[in-house]
Amino acid sequence: MSIGNVWPSPAAQTALRPITASNVEIVGGFWAERQLINRRSTILHGFEQLQQSGSLGNLRLAAGGQGQYQAEADSGGTTLPFLDSDVYKWLEAVGWELGRGHDPALAAAADEAIAVVAAAQRPDGYINSFVQVVRGGAPYRDLAWGHEFYCVGHLTQAAVAWHRSLGDDRLLAIAVAACDHIDREFGPSGRPGVDGHPCIEMALVELTRVTGDKRYLRLAERMLSLRGHGLIGPGRFGPEYWQDHEPVNVAQTVAGHAVRQLYLDCGAVDVAVESGDRELLAAVRRRWSDLMATKTYLTGGMGSRHRDEAFGDAYELPPDRAYTETCAAIASVMLAWRLLLATGDSGYADAIERAMFNGVLSGISLTGDEFFYTNPLQRRTHRAGRPGDAERAPWYACACCPPNLMRLLSSWHQFLATSDAAGVQIHQYANATIRADLAVGTVELEVQTGYPWQGQVTVRVVQSPEEPWVLSLRLPQWSRSPQTQPVALYTQRWQAGDTVVLDLDLSIRVTEPDRRVDAVRGCVALERGPLVYCVESADIPGGTQLEDLKFDSEREPVELARPDIAPSVTGISLPVIDAGGGGHLEAGAIPYFAWANRKVDAMRVWIPR
Amino acid sequence: MSIGNVWPSPAAQTALRPITASNVEIVGGFWAERQLINRRSTILHGFEQLQQSGSLGNLRLAAGGQGQYQAEADSGGTTLPFLDSDVYKWLEAVGWELGRGHDPALAAAADEAIAVVAAAQRPDGYINSFVQVVRGGAPYRDLAWGHEFYCVGHLTQAAVAWHRSLGDDRLLAIAVAACDHIDREFGPSGRPGVDGHPCIEMALVELTRVTGDKRYLRLAERMLSLRGHGLIGPGRFGPEYWQDHEPVNVAQTVAGHAVRQLYLDCGAVDVAVESGDRELLAAVRRRWSDLMATKTYLTGGMGSRHRDEAFGDAYELPPDRAYTETCAAIASVMLAWRLLLATGDSGYADAIERAMFNGVLSGISLTGDEFFYTNPLQRRTHRAGRPGDAERAPWYACACCPPNLMRLLSSWHQFLATSDAAGVQIHQYANATIRADLAVGTVELEVQTGYPWQGQVTVRVVQSPEEPWVLSLRLPQWSRSPQTQPVALYTQRWQAGDTVVLDLDLSIRVTEPDRRVDAVRGCVALERGPLVYCVESADIPGGTQLEDLKFDSEREPVELARPDIAPSVTGISLPVIDAGGGGHLEAGAIPYFAWANRKVDAMRVWIPR
Repeated sequence: MSIGNVWPSPAAQTALRPITASNVEIVGGFWAERQLINRRSTILHGFEQLQQSGSLGNLRLAAGGQGQYQAEADSGGTTLPFLDSDVYKWLEAVGWELGRGHDPALAAAADEAIAVVAAAQRPDGYINSFVQVVRGGAPYRDLAWGHEFYCVGHLTQAAVAWHRSLGDDRLLAIAVAACDHIDREFGPSGRPGVDGHPCIEMALVELTRVTGDKRYLRLAERMLSLRGHGLIGPGRFGPEYWQDHEPVNVAQTVAGHAVRQLYLDCGAVDVAVESGDRELLAAVRRRWSDLMATKTYLTGGMGSRHRDEAFGDAYELPPDRAYTETCAAIASVMLAWRLLLATGDSGYADAIERAMFNGVLSGISLTGDEFFYTNPLQRRTHRAGRPGDAERAPWYACACCPPNLMRLLSSWHQFLATSDAAGVQIHQYANATIRADLAVGTVELEVQTGYPWQGQVTVRVVQSPEEPWVLSLRLPQWSRSPQTQPVALYTQRWQAGDTVVLDLDLSIRVTEPDRRVDAVRGCVALERGPLVYCVESADIPGGTQLEDLKFDSEREPVELARPDIAPSVTGISLPVIDAGGGGHLEAGAIPYFAWANRKVDAMRVWIPR
Repeated sequence: MSIGNVWPSPAAQTALRPITASNVEIVGGFWAERQLINRRSTILHGFEQLQQSGSLGNLRLAAGGQGQYQAEADSGGTTLPFLDSDVYKWLEAVGWELGRGHDPALAAAADEAIAVVAAAQRPDGYINSFVQVVRGGAPYRDLAWGHEFYCVGHLTQAAVAWHRSLGDDRLLAIAVAACDHIDREFGPSGRPGVDGHPCIEMALVELTRVTGDKRYLRLAERMLSLRGHGLIGPGRFGPEYWQDHEPVNVAQTVAGHAVRQLYLDCGAVDVAVESGDRELLAAVRRRWSDLMATKTYLTGGMGSRHRDEAFGDAYELPPDRAYTETCAAIASVMLAWRLLLATGDSGYADAIERAMFNGVLSGISLTGDEFFYTNPLQRRTHRAGRPGDAERAPWYACACCPPNLMRLLSSWHQFLATSDAAGVQIHQYANATIRADLAVGTVELEVQTGYPWQGQVTVRVVQSPEEPWVLSLRLPQWSRSPQTQPVALYTQRWQAGDTVVLDLDLSIRVTEPDRRVDAVRGCVALERGPLVYCVESADIPGGTQLEDLKFDSEREPVELARPDIAPSVTGISLPVIDAGGGGHLEAGAIPYFAWANRKVDAMRVWIPR
């Protein structure tokens, strides 16, 4: 039995419980294919890149190897001290992946990486290749920018995955020693210290869940309570950048660096449910509501500013300069999942769906070996003198996003369903088998669907206890009127062979923006089911330019099969008017997640009316 | 007799010649007040700030003083190696200012600064306090980021100002030695080298003009021809950032860091007119045309991106995240002036007017002692959790803009008029006396106007030769139809007392954006004469929020005196509809340059229809 990422302790105050990871399997369709590409292509590609880029080599140097440390982001001298974390995130992905089924090549690669990590750790438990190799080994001298706790956080998440998924505790021993090293210096009787980049907080809570040792939870609580009082310093972007401007249980809105805020709030929810801290949970929920209402792109992307990778102001949502880092979309899924467990509010599952199908998946190519760090909603037609600045890349100097995608996709089945005392909740639709151990007995379900291309979802009961229980199916926010309940509840005595069929309306939706979003005033976007669509220059009539096309609201957009993009893809044929003088024409729209997989030039999600 | 900034040699290929600086004086009205505030307040404030911030102290350290070098932009460790240049720009301002009239306090402050600069210079001519104090004294090791030539460029511009304005050659001796030091290492027989930040190119041309020594012009030519071939390296933002991606005489569009591109093109025009390089001049003109058509804000501001202070793509002109650095607007004036002299095309004077009245002046408070580094066209209503991020500041860690404003305002009278073989051209309207020595004899003119508040401009001939000559008055682009000639030409035998009266129509204009500017689609802006207007939250009806107000196109905006902002200011009363539910209301608009001089919250130039 393997349990999943985020596994609240039995006493934790959550509305829902995750399903044991090995009890959920995606067996076909859209997400099965994405998980297969991740397993067969992306993760192995990642191992090659970790070797080529030097991230793994850096840890070898810390273990006593000879060579040049790799930490230069560019010739301008920007140094990246956090590259170890990419190795850890990749290891986490392999941990979940091997839990889904053995693979000799993956296992061998992971064994090699784990051995390097083990060798890099000092006898006192400290591990950070940058400090050990480049900074002379004196730890915790630059908590603001050094990412030392952050790296240990990712190490710990990987260790938890290997423990839960495989019962393999090689990494857990390393993580425990590393966290103990931090706890000795920064624990209750130690000096105050928080990392400029949150991450370790949620990892520490999970470490308590795994080990039963409450010191780690206490350390996470301490770090959360120390934050927001100016301890980190203003830095170059002000204390907001690392959420040090207001206490975590007070701040009303998200602020600063998007990934930092979202990782921080993940840790806050984890602490809140374990400690029963309702005030802390309420603060995160308030911030999330405001974030959804004012700072989230249609794609679920977050973070409007390039300069400091920050959220920006409310309604500051430029499509062209959207930063919308892949990691921020991933972090929003991590946070929404925690809030879903804590509260049972299916709105969080709506947010997960929107982010996964759009802002997360756009970060990885259809072939699984090229990535986007930023995910804008518009790219303009190339002009002379401007190099193409939005091509997918096989890796990045700052490579946080690719292994983050890997670990999310390899654990994605864990996000499909939950259970509670009354029954089973299905949040995300995919061809899957789900088994849940309820108080009344074991439930086994089979979900069949062509989602997201088709709207019919059939849930078949394979096994059921005799007592009645509640099957709860999320009705996606886009599929229902504001008056409709967000979930369909089916309460009955179930028998094997019973089926429930959900028919979601996948009519094309022409979406108007909130009037306060200045940057897309006068535009519309196309959506179908959970998918946001975009128009690429490859799909517009010859002789026209994307910037000249307007949506022709006198005519209806219609569905159009797009096997040229990938099998099963449903595109949209979009009526447009050429403001450049070409009259009434048709353009093609494809799902946003699939953009930039052909030779294209311009792209836009929001189309002028 | 003092001659001005940018003084082409007699053989230079220019259509127009500048007027001897001491022959133009602004004697009253709008610009006289701005020059007076600059002289009485801003420049003295600048000297205090140069002392407090350590910029002057850094040079003292280079001269052997004891103390801590000041170069930290923030606690994140960003180091600024170019702070010497702020001292030089301030000295340039004082040079022009003392040329307009003696002032003991200014002269004493300048004497002090000049003595420090002289003492800082090494016997071999090298001068750069950062390299001398912080980097161990080895010069030219980091041309990409070190700004060593850039600082010498500003030193040389100051030296030229003191020579031309006052015949004082203390700085000139320092500049010549510094340029000779560079020429020895990077001259025709030396190694190739260009600075990551252009500036020295235009200064070297002026140094040839002052000294007659063509080595400096040759060095500038060499630097221009070396640029665009990847010599500087990609840096952290790519070779576009410092215009090293395409040769200067080839690149079709502006690209990268706005101030770098504009300073570079200033040098290119200076070289082109001295060398008769028509191809180079044509390349700059092409870039300028494209810049005006696709990358210039309504305010004349330039540079859309915060991350790398770059232009951004064509039509990428977000009002909220407009970077529009004050220095970029100033640099556009410097470049447009050179192009105006080179070509005689009054369109360049139109651009100067737009930039000066809007994007430049917005960079300095009405009191003259607070500044904006960036000049956005929109600021949203403050929300909890977001600190006010757009307040004027008395100085900046990176303080390039304030002394740049000082030197421009102190030499602004030089930009009013030019002459050629046929007569006198008046480009900018202000109460002024203008004296020009034409081939036919000396002309003396008096201009009287309430510009920009009133549209009548009266030019009175005070003295004229007997032969006929041509008086040319620019008809601002905003005041005429596309069919109208851009200048009014008056050719006659003039007698003292003759007057010409221009009546410019200052009706309020409701301006639609170019349809390709996505960020302000569906909005309008208000203009009157050369002024762009904005609405601040202080001028909207109580209980409404700026984001909820729409322009009511059914009613007419009307003029409204705004003595509360400053004497003479004409504001606009603007009909609006409260989309928040408040019905038909009136809001006040004031000239954009005057924004953020009261306690305000939100501001916007572009108003939704």
